[in-house]
Amino acid sequence: MNIESFLKEKAKIINQFLEKYLGYGEPKNLYEAMVYLPLAGGKRLRPILAMLSCEAVGGNPKDAIPFGIALELVHNFTLIHDDIMDDDDLRRGKKTVHKIYDIPTAINAGDALFAYSFEILLKTNVSADIKNKLALILSQMSRGIVEGQQLDVKFESKEDVSEKEYLVMIEKKTALMFETASRGGAIIGNGKEIEVERLAKYGRLLGLGFQIWDDLLDIRGKESTLGKPIGSDLKKGKHTLIIIHALKNGNKKQIETLKKVLRNKNATSELVKKAVLVLEEIGSLDYAEKMAFMYADQAKEILDIFPKKNREILCSFVNYMVRRIY
Amino acid sequence: MNIESFLKEKAKIINQFLEKYLGYGEPKNLYEAMVYLPLAGGKRLRPILAMLSCEAVGGNPKDAIPFGIALELVHNFTLIHDDIMDDDDLRRGKKTVHKIYDIPTAINAGDALFAYSFEILLKTNVSADIKNKLALILSQMSRGIVEGQQLDVKFESKEDVSEKEYLVMIEKKTALMFETASRGGAIIGNGKEIEVERLAKYGRLLGLGFQIWDDLLDIRGKESTLGKPIGSDLKKGKHTLIIIHALKNGNKKQIETLKKVLRNKNATSELVKKAVLVLEEIGSLDYAEKMAFMYADQAKEILDIFPKKNREILCSFVNYMVRRIY
Repeated sequence: MNIESFLKEKAKIINQFLEKYLGYGEPKNLYEAMVYLPLAGGKRLRPILAMLSCEAVGGNPKDAIPFGIALELVHNFTLIHDDIMDDDDLRRGKKTVHKIYDIPTAINAGDALFAYSFEILLKTNVSADIKNKLALILSQMSRGIVEGQQLDVKFESKEDVSEKEYLVMIEKKTALMFETASRGGAIIGNGKEIEVERLAKYGRLLGLGFQIWDDLLDIRGKESTLGKPIGSDLKKGKHTLIIIHALKNGNKKQIETLKKVLRNKNATSELVKKAVLVLEEIGSLDYAEKMAFMYADQAKEILDIFPKKNREILCSFVNYMVRRIY
Repeated sequence: MNIESFLKEKAKIINQFLEKYLGYGEPKNLYEAMVYLPLAGGKRLRPILAMLSCEAVGGNPKDAIPFGIALELVHNFTLIHDDIMDDDDLRRGKKTVHKIYDIPTAINAGDALFAYSFEILLKTNVSADIKNKLALILSQMSRGIVEGQQLDVKFESKEDVSEKEYLVMIEKKTALMFETASRGGAIIGNGKEIEVERLAKYGRLLGLGFQIWDDLLDIRGKESTLGKPIGSDLKKGKHTLIIIHALKNGNKKQIETLKKVLRNKNATSELVKKAVLVLEEIGSLDYAEKMAFMYADQAKEILDIFPKKNREILCSFVNYMVRRIY
């Protein structure tokens, strides 16, 4: 079976549970704002990873669904709050929550999703001890993601961000949730300590590769697939691995061309195209691609202790996440 | 021992634990923003209530401290986010978090406090089953508080709010946390079901009385005690029990005087004074006071199943909370 159709099948299952869990309550506009983004689509990669990890240690993947849904809700809560902070208009090709409703409603919707994620996690069909462990890793993860988001916001007004600082940021903001998904799935499946640790590391490496790939998509992707204009991150002045590499390795003229776009919200698509050409010239896009593949390869390598069948699916998952079409 | 010095002693203990738990991490400005409000003072009524409830069912009050701290952190997280939504400048006589830092940092600080509250709760020295129960009531409570906050925000732009709607709002926004404090404390102390339910109801009634009293303080209080100007709620157009009563029972002229202040941020203190006189004339302040006392009395009445010593302290607690000096 092809990985894309496999993931679509899994996402369908997740969507059914999401719809089941995300009921409507009062006040109505709060609940509408809460379900709007989670039900607006998404690949459900985090819940799927939790299920695959549970299966890899011999557990029943269905047992990981409530935990996976909890992760998906935390993911959506952070997106809603991030969009307020960045004042973004679009997400998944649709208007952001605070643009459709208002900022107070969007703050509340995020907070309520976060609270609800624990309620759902506690439905997991495991021992009370394991449930506590899951609640602990979910809360620690959430705090870590907020730290990452704070770094990301701070970097936007910072002149110099090093590659190391960038990697710390994405490790918290992105990779930690994949790490927690695979760790939690393995815990639910009653994995041995070495299995849990290997899968957690797999999730972290996968997450690092995924984020770098995501940065590449902002430039090499298609608007129709992205759901937002090409080069959005450039105009926002996000310090991605690509930009950090370019500012370090470009010549004066190249950097001048780049700086016309960086942190310039009104940059024309003509200017963006020129900046992208410069990034290709310097080799920054190829460099980022190489780094993404490096993390992807490392993630695959540490799976050697798992049965062939599970290893194969987890490897396909990496290939999918770090080779999504431009 | 006088109740005020008793509460101050208890608050000292809570403050020690708060300082112990609230460590500093990276990024620094996030952690500074996180600890700023929790360590800026506060009466610690919610953790104290959890301790008193634990003691009332024969438990060791110290066992309720981590849960109490978790409540205090959720309380502070909601205040930080509420202040952003209301764009308030002052809280506890100091600048609000988003005014000292910025809105993104304040959103993040609130989110991180919320995440951290679960980490602390999970330190409670009770069985895994009880810990799960505590995590569940904390998350359900948090979602309820957000519902209450959403109603509160919505009411500000609504013409007509009924007494019933107001009571539903404060039951969620304020009373639910006191209910959860006393319920959680009783659960930690291994209380019988009837004890847990009685204490939970006590907390809810106490919380209702407390909120109505708080609305009264906005008008009858002293600026030095309040930490904000008299009549702030009037100028914001908050539909308190007082305003709902006045708009229903005042004559045309009285209502005209009131409307010059309601939702008028620039109302002079002269206009505010006139509005307060009108509220006295209509009897709205006395009405609210009567209602606050009614809830306080009901809270005390249902304590009959508890030992005299615990009953007395819980009654003093009500008297303190619903009779704080004007």
